[in-house]
Amino acid sequence: MQNISFYQEAFRQYLNDFTLDKEPKSLYRPITYILKLGGKRLRPVLTLMTAEIFDTKFNEALNAALSIEVFHNFSLVHDDIMDDAPLRRGHVTVHEKWDINTGILSGDAMLILAYQLFESYEPEVFQNLAKLFSKTALEVCEGQQHDIDFETRTDVTIPEYLQMIEFKTAVLVGAAMQMGAIIAKASTKDQNAIYEFGKNLGIAFQLQDDYLDAFGDPKKFGKQVGGDIIENKKTYLYLKAWAFSDETNKMNLEGLFSHPTDNKEDKIRQVKHIFEKSGAVKATQNEIEHYTKKAFAVLENLNISNAKKLVLREFGQQLMNRNV
Amino acid sequence: MQNISFYQEAFRQYLNDFTLDKEPKSLYRPITYILKLGGKRLRPVLTLMTAEIFDTKFNEALNAALSIEVFHNFSLVHDDIMDDAPLRRGHVTVHEKWDINTGILSGDAMLILAYQLFESYEPEVFQNLAKLFSKTALEVCEGQQHDIDFETRTDVTIPEYLQMIEFKTAVLVGAAMQMGAIIAKASTKDQNAIYEFGKNLGIAFQLQDDYLDAFGDPKKFGKQVGGDIIENKKTYLYLKAWAFSDETNKMNLEGLFSHPTDNKEDKIRQVKHIFEKSGAVKATQNEIEHYTKKAFAVLENLNISNAKKLVLREFGQQLMNRNV
Repeated sequence: MQNISFYQEAFRQYLNDFTLDKEPKSLYRPITYILKLGGKRLRPVLTLMTAEIFDTKFNEALNAALSIEVFHNFSLVHDDIMDDAPLRRGHVTVHEKWDINTGILSGDAMLILAYQLFESYEPEVFQNLAKLFSKTALEVCEGQQHDIDFETRTDVTIPEYLQMIEFKTAVLVGAAMQMGAIIAKASTKDQNAIYEFGKNLGIAFQLQDDYLDAFGDPKKFGKQVGGDIIENKKTYLYLKAWAFSDETNKMNLEGLFSHPTDNKEDKIRQVKHIFEKSGAVKATQNEIEHYTKKAFAVLENLNISNAKKLVLREFGQQLMNRNV
Repeated sequence: MQNISFYQEAFRQYLNDFTLDKEPKSLYRPITYILKLGGKRLRPVLTLMTAEIFDTKFNEALNAALSIEVFHNFSLVHDDIMDDAPLRRGHVTVHEKWDINTGILSGDAMLILAYQLFESYEPEVFQNLAKLFSKTALEVCEGQQHDIDFETRTDVTIPEYLQMIEFKTAVLVGAAMQMGAIIAKASTKDQNAIYEFGKNLGIAFQLQDDYLDAFGDPKKFGKQVGGDIIENKKTYLYLKAWAFSDETNKMNLEGLFSHPTDNKEDKIRQVKHIFEKSGAVKATQNEIEHYTKKAFAVLENLNISNAKKLVLREFGQQLMNRNV
């Protein structure tokens, strides 16, 4: 086993050597562009790390790790079109740099490339990887569709919201880890356990994202604090605050989230006050802890050494402390 | 072996029973909509037919046939967004009936569903199908990108045009047939031969489409005759006419294809006159014959009975006579 920055570096090297110097350039250049924009590469790192947890050299998992990263970036390209986002990781998005058609078609090609990257594995492993990938990719689409549908709905429930973030982001974390286990030929029981570990950690991470967007340290969080509030996003904090409020406070919250506002700072301050006063902050923190604990509890059932369980637990803790 | 309408009917039945009654409905309803719009279902029929040519019951090939049809419809949904097309098979397109985001996301889900449909096959067959599928799907994307790029280019060569139609439409016909052969565990030699048969027939069919768009019988062709000319599409006829023309006629042709015109009938008449006078019509007819013959020549090398070769030849002839 190595530390996380070792796997990050190994993956970055592999991605750097992955060339798409093919024709038509108008199709392949946007793919290289988005793939090389950077990022922490946590999903592929999890694939490599999990392979080693189950006693297989990380380099055997490089193609699956790259597939996960290509798929993740495919979803960013198409999501950015749907959200009309101008920037991604501080750089201009694909459909802004080129055009929407380029974003659609290059994204399509990336989804196919993600499957192609499994072709280096023998038939049985290939089929297991591709099956897990298809199931996960379809769930990611479903999660994105729910997210879109939620924008215009006023009756979204907490279970619906949790399922949305599970599908939109957490299942890919679980799948990234399970792929490492598939390549290492781990038992089905261990494969399922490591998937559950990744998925629950993914849910905790996403809930924490909701929390940090409003209450994070601006220097540490890296995004504009209060961004979700300005965009009227109905995050976990909002849904909990709404559920905990009496009729007057519900109307107050809905009012803040429906009228355009000139004074952004004032709106952020007011909404954060409601989030705290209503108990939504405490409830969100509890939920983050619940899913983190759920992830760690799964580790007990894994057929690996205690030293390796410790590695996974420490990774989980670093992730939740945002130190990776 | 059965006749084509038998396979068409069997496939229609299978497609009809294929339900996507899943949540979110906003993601899956557009998929059902486009899949049930109709069409001749020639690609899936070819998969079923080829399985039987190599002595395997057609029903073993139904999932692969459905995958081909789902992929084909995925490409229609995304292409219609890119082309801003209002109608498909006489019905409103997905992105017009819903919106562009729905078209993008439902299309993505269809591409994933196409891979999932291979999961009923054993690992080795699964891998062979998925590999061929990925290679073909990527070529279809490349062909579509070339087609887009050609719209703004004035220096497209005949070989470039032929490669574009090969990738955009013909390789999928070849792959549809090869999939039937893969499922029937035909030899690699036979698999490659049937792929070449389908691909060359696909090129001939697409060139004939270019020809019929200008010179077809309006009652038989089913589309508006002269549509390509009105849209200034640089088809095989145009590229050949341009190549055969002297400087004066080149400018004449370019003029007709660059200025907006009030009198559509007059433009069609003038362009068709140039197509004929320049020798482009004859050259196109020769090229159609060349690719049809190339397809039929491949049949000689196939390790199947003469009766079956005759079935394939008759299918090719019916296809080129547009009787299927």
